[in-house]
Amino acid sequence: MKSEIIAVGSEMLTPFRQDTNSLYLTEKLNELGVTVAFKTIVGDRQRDLVSAIRAALARTDIVVVMGGLGPTEDDLTREAVAEALSLTLRRDAEQVVALAARAASWRIPMPTNNLKQADVLEGAAILANPNGSAPGQWLDTTFDGYRKLLMLVPGPPSECRPLFDAECIPRLRDLVPTRHIAKRTLRAAMIPESQADKLLAPIYTEYKDVETTILAHVGDIQLTLLCTKPKLAAAQARIDELSGRLEEVLDDWLYSSGAEAADSLEQIVLYHLGMRQATLAVAESCTGGMIAERVTRVPGSSRSFLGGAIVYSDELKTAFAGVPSELIARYGAVSQEAAEALAYGIRRYTGATLGLGVTGIAGPGGGSEAKPVGLVYIALCDDQKTEVTEKNIRGDRQRVREWTTQQALDLIRRRLR
Amino acid sequence: MKSEIIAVGSEMLTPFRQDTNSLYLTEKLNELGVTVAFKTIVGDRQRDLVSAIRAALARTDIVVVMGGLGPTEDDLTREAVAEALSLTLRRDAEQVVALAARAASWRIPMPTNNLKQADVLEGAAILANPNGSAPGQWLDTTFDGYRKLLMLVPGPPSECRPLFDAECIPRLRDLVPTRHIAKRTLRAAMIPESQADKLLAPIYTEYKDVETTILAHVGDIQLTLLCTKPKLAAAQARIDELSGRLEEVLDDWLYSSGAEAADSLEQIVLYHLGMRQATLAVAESCTGGMIAERVTRVPGSSRSFLGGAIVYSDELKTAFAGVPSELIARYGAVSQEAAEALAYGIRRYTGATLGLGVTGIAGPGGGSEAKPVGLVYIALCDDQKTEVTEKNIRGDRQRVREWTTQQALDLIRRRLR
Repeated sequence: MKSEIIAVGSEMLTPFRQDTNSLYLTEKLNELGVTVAFKTIVGDRQRDLVSAIRAALARTDIVVVMGGLGPTEDDLTREAVAEALSLTLRRDAEQVVALAARAASWRIPMPTNNLKQADVLEGAAILANPNGSAPGQWLDTTFDGYRKLLMLVPGPPSECRPLFDAECIPRLRDLVPTRHIAKRTLRAAMIPESQADKLLAPIYTEYKDVETTILAHVGDIQLTLLCTKPKLAAAQARIDELSGRLEEVLDDWLYSSGAEAADSLEQIVLYHLGMRQATLAVAESCTGGMIAERVTRVPGSSRSFLGGAIVYSDELKTAFAGVPSELIARYGAVSQEAAEALAYGIRRYTGATLGLGVTGIAGPGGGSEAKPVGLVYIALCDDQKTEVTEKNIRGDRQRVREWTTQQALDLIRRRLR
Repeated sequence: MKSEIIAVGSEMLTPFRQDTNSLYLTEKLNELGVTVAFKTIVGDRQRDLVSAIRAALARTDIVVVMGGLGPTEDDLTREAVAEALSLTLRRDAEQVVALAARAASWRIPMPTNNLKQADVLEGAAILANPNGSAPGQWLDTTFDGYRKLLMLVPGPPSECRPLFDAECIPRLRDLVPTRHIAKRTLRAAMIPESQADKLLAPIYTEYKDVETTILAHVGDIQLTLLCTKPKLAAAQARIDELSGRLEEVLDDWLYSSGAEAADSLEQIVLYHLGMRQATLAVAESCTGGMIAERVTRVPGSSRSFLGGAIVYSDELKTAFAGVPSELIARYGAVSQEAAEALAYGIRRYTGATLGLGVTGIAGPGGGSEAKPVGLVYIALCDDQKTEVTEKNIRGDRQRVREWTTQQALDLIRRRLR
């Protein structure tokens, strides 16, 4: 079955804001085997809304209208659906009582304007919204002689998502032919851009019944495989076969794989550290705290991550990681020698099992012919040895920093495997 | 004039990917005084594409169709526009030559499939695409008796945006009645959520001819004011008046204001540090490097930012910021005393003008009745005094960390003003 999501709100037609609820609703609809064929974003003008709703009803079976259910003059979704389908609106007494009770519990007077939130479309069921004042509505109706399901759901994510899960999904499940979904997510780090598509596309394009989505970020790719079939075992078999083949070519670039989400690179690093009862400390120059910030995003990271130093100035490279000032004077702060000394020094100063040292030129200034913007050194030191990686990274300041962070985490992962 | 943007591509109807080009195109269209009334996202199915194009032509004057111009079987935009408007496609000889030359310069054989990129709609002008193989197309046509402008532009951002700027904007400027735009962006930090709308809405809603957009992030709001009028002076006067009134109520929450973009909070902090020839060092516990990472995003931050320490473990609080272990034993690592000692110690160890110390419980674990998740202490020390702020922050780990970072930067800003 085909569906359309209509997001209502003039703010989403500005250069500053995007609809994000629809990603969530898309995932939920796909899981039921319902395709999202169109998404439409429309402002708070009744004429435009009516046009969008009619177009959606004409071309899909299921229409979700999101937003425009609040109490202000700009909230016109109820009125527009009534006009598009030539239905009447009636003020629901129970809803009026509920609105009054809500206002009383907040000890605020209720503006009469608010009462329009109690207006219900002829033939619609009310969808309870425990997180807001405007209820949703469910309409099982016909348009041009065809059966259509139309849902009105509130716009704020904190209201929209729970209401959709609790009220819309069960109703849809009863009406949509049963389909089972199998899913798998794979993540890989630092695979060269030119390689990824060349290696993967010939494989996944063979599986027309599996929807493969590739999401690429700096030094990271995430593949999501989705298969919907009448029987779960059949869907799962296809996913298992495809993911097996992809995992084989991804080889040791692959760092995680999971039935729903896959772990992030920092989660994997912390997992390996925990398994070996090892600890990590970092001395960051050009990344300026980004590596530590990523590691400490993970709850419980304090068990394996001691901390470290942001050695932006040369003096701090000496004070916090014991890099001799003569070494900096001789080789420069961006050098293999400085990176090694940072890794070695931060390990010694903190007593960590692993010391990481990073130095580089993030740009836009500070580059030279000998040491251009994008040159970075990443050193990793344990009780056996210190290894240094030198890279030349293309891109702006943010990309150089993100790429260096990803590369550093991947070096730790590879050392610990 | 009203416009619609149609983004073509099945990948944008998955839960994983969003159209982002349309934000750019919206900004450019608004600057010409053209409203974006609808955005539609549609997959690579010809029937759906035809339906989306017809709906757009029926309800707007200007239609931009983005994507679906490549060489694969899934690229159907040209065919769909031809069907929607009952136009023929002809293979353009010049474009065939250009495609062949392009393939030759890359030393790759040209698959015959690629030739469909040379198909041009009857009556269309070709829009040069120096960054890709598929040219854009410009159609000045009629639909149901009304004049319509329809543009076909490539999907990849690196092709779409330069082509739109170089080829579409000048043509639109000649056809769209001249309008002038005045713009202003204001940013404010740590304004209580309950206050922002109450203070601002009564003011900006008075200005019906100014489009005000509010973008809120953790502890941060950004207001963008946009006014389009036949005369620039008139638009500018409205913007000046409204922004003056908003700046007054925003009072010292306001940290930056600019005709185009406004500076970020970290830029403002670095600006004040530079003005006073002062330096900053940080000792971060619960934020784990996030404060340093934000400061070092700014090019040239090394002039005022020395670095600091990520003192995740208690031992590092002592080693890198001289916090006495007895102090931690007595008051706890999350305490006013520990924050003060971190700020004092990092300043002393680094020689910075300002020392910042942050400690708290980011969660989800680690909380207790006396010290719940979300409790944070932020201390700021200069040669005169050490001030500590205690806050209880609601939300998950990421929100606690982001909020603490924003609050810390704002404390520095307020100290330096």
